[in-house]
Amino acid sequence: MGKLLIVGTVAFDAIETPFGKTDKILGGAATFIGLAASQFDVQSAIVSIVGDDFPQEYIDLLKNKNIDITSLEVVKGGKTFFWKGKYHNDLNSRDTLVTELNTLADFKPVVPQNFTTADVVMLGNLHPDIQMSVIDQMTKRPKLVILDTMNFWMDNTLEELMRVIKHTDIITINDGEARQLTHEYSLVKAAEEIQKMGPKYVVIKKGEHGALLFHKDDVFFAPALPLEEVFDPTGAGDTFAGGFAGYLAATGNASFNNIKNAVIHGSNLASFCVERFGTERMVDLKRDEINKRLHQFKALTQFDIELQ
Amino acid sequence: MGKLLIVGTVAFDAIETPFGKTDKILGGAATFIGLAASQFDVQSAIVSIVGDDFPQEYIDLLKNKNIDITSLEVVKGGKTFFWKGKYHNDLNSRDTLVTELNTLADFKPVVPQNFTTADVVMLGNLHPDIQMSVIDQMTKRPKLVILDTMNFWMDNTLEELMRVIKHTDIITINDGEARQLTHEYSLVKAAEEIQKMGPKYVVIKKGEHGALLFHKDDVFFAPALPLEEVFDPTGAGDTFAGGFAGYLAATGNASFNNIKNAVIHGSNLASFCVERFGTERMVDLKRDEINKRLHQFKALTQFDIELQ
Repeated sequence: MGKLLIVGTVAFDAIETPFGKTDKILGGAATFIGLAASQFDVQSAIVSIVGDDFPQEYIDLLKNKNIDITSLEVVKGGKTFFWKGKYHNDLNSRDTLVTELNTLADFKPVVPQNFTTADVVMLGNLHPDIQMSVIDQMTKRPKLVILDTMNFWMDNTLEELMRVIKHTDIITINDGEARQLTHEYSLVKAAEEIQKMGPKYVVIKKGEHGALLFHKDDVFFAPALPLEEVFDPTGAGDTFAGGFAGYLAATGNASFNNIKNAVIHGSNLASFCVERFGTERMVDLKRDEINKRLHQFKALTQFDIELQ
Repeated sequence: MGKLLIVGTVAFDAIETPFGKTDKILGGAATFIGLAASQFDVQSAIVSIVGDDFPQEYIDLLKNKNIDITSLEVVKGGKTFFWKGKYHNDLNSRDTLVTELNTLADFKPVVPQNFTTADVVMLGNLHPDIQMSVIDQMTKRPKLVILDTMNFWMDNTLEELMRVIKHTDIITINDGEARQLTHEYSLVKAAEEIQKMGPKYVVIKKGEHGALLFHKDDVFFAPALPLEEVFDPTGAGDTFAGGFAGYLAATGNASFNNIKNAVIHGSNLASFCVERFGTERMVDLKRDEINKRLHQFKALTQFDIELQ
């Protein structure tokens, strides 16, 4: 069993899609990552911050998934990070209606003592200085540092972000962000450029169009499972990252072939996440549902052409 | 060796992309289909029409690919169908600048006698009445009727198009068109609806995002090969269709597994087409280049996860 350290937001989300809307529900990058990773044989911890408006029920939910929450700081009198967004009709784009940083504004992450030697560090989308602070607290070089980030940090804190990227083994980034970061339209070229910045592996997420994994001359592609309905894309990218990191921490093998498998496991879990609002589908997702869908992934992509 | 009957335009294209522009060069759906299909062990014929401004050199090119051009009508004093288009910077969309139907306006297709019993009929994008006329001339029900079409015919001749679709075994259509035809946003639902209209197999082309094959509860996905540069997308869809139809005609096997292989072969050939202007890359494409890229397709998509 490997150790997985997760840093990221634990938050309230309020979501509107063409199919309905929610009040404040459980959200945040670290939450989705933790829930997805809990499907694998890992010992994980979340480093994050919330206010005392954060319900005990949500804390218990994470605890019950065997996630170490020693370093989930609860600020007395503080309010939890809140995001409110509305998806457009095609679900491929959204407007952010509200972002309240609240306690997150003064977040100083503290890595739990027994996780300073974690095998895998998953840096969820956050200010790069917070991500860097977590890397700096590791007393042993982790086998893998995995970074997720977004265009907001490229626009506002590029220098700080580049420093984190330099210390990263695997970056997960969406197609538009890969283009923004490198000024290359071709994703093949963008992935080449990003590898020069530090990461040995580049995962480019294309949402409903799947994910690409690049490493030197090797490329691997995993489609998103075609679904009858996508209900709410919130957290799909984080769920991908959580499945990806969780599988790698559990297997402890950073070969290209195993990272390919991690991409499949991440895509597989993300295909569940989008079927309900927020974390709803992930909370009681069963092993046999996951296995069944892995079979579907295999049927979707595997072929047998005689090669010459 | 199977017999493949191709109907579609043989044309002049003038193309502008961010990388350059051409004068009138060889183009047309049937041209791209024929060139791609010629990579397989098939006996193929093109039914189409041109004016006497169409160079002998282009006719010889098709002949030299062993394409039967008995029914490529050359109209004395007539002018060849001409399309001029300009691609936007991302190459995902384009503006049509000129469409001159010319001889195509009065095209009455005549299927060559020895192709009225062809195994596979590939109906390239054309007025649905012309496509239907070809089906009507077949003296034996073909093993497979494959239809390619576009939104223009949905907008203007929907009733005629629906009649052709009813007689079709496999339809190839892009994602936007599948949505338009069915008023379903989900491609899974769209493919279900299209199967009710006639075709047993539905291929949904998503350009750089690959292609999906649907048949009852079976789904297969083939990515587009990630390329350093896409130079000119013109003809990529037709090249896909030509590789797809050519492989099926050559193998004479309409099982789901073999149609999966046809999707891979079509995607593989399309990945070459976009590397140069028009038919340039397809004209002297070598077997070993094709085989090499099939290996890349396999590496791109195949994984080995232990399933439970």
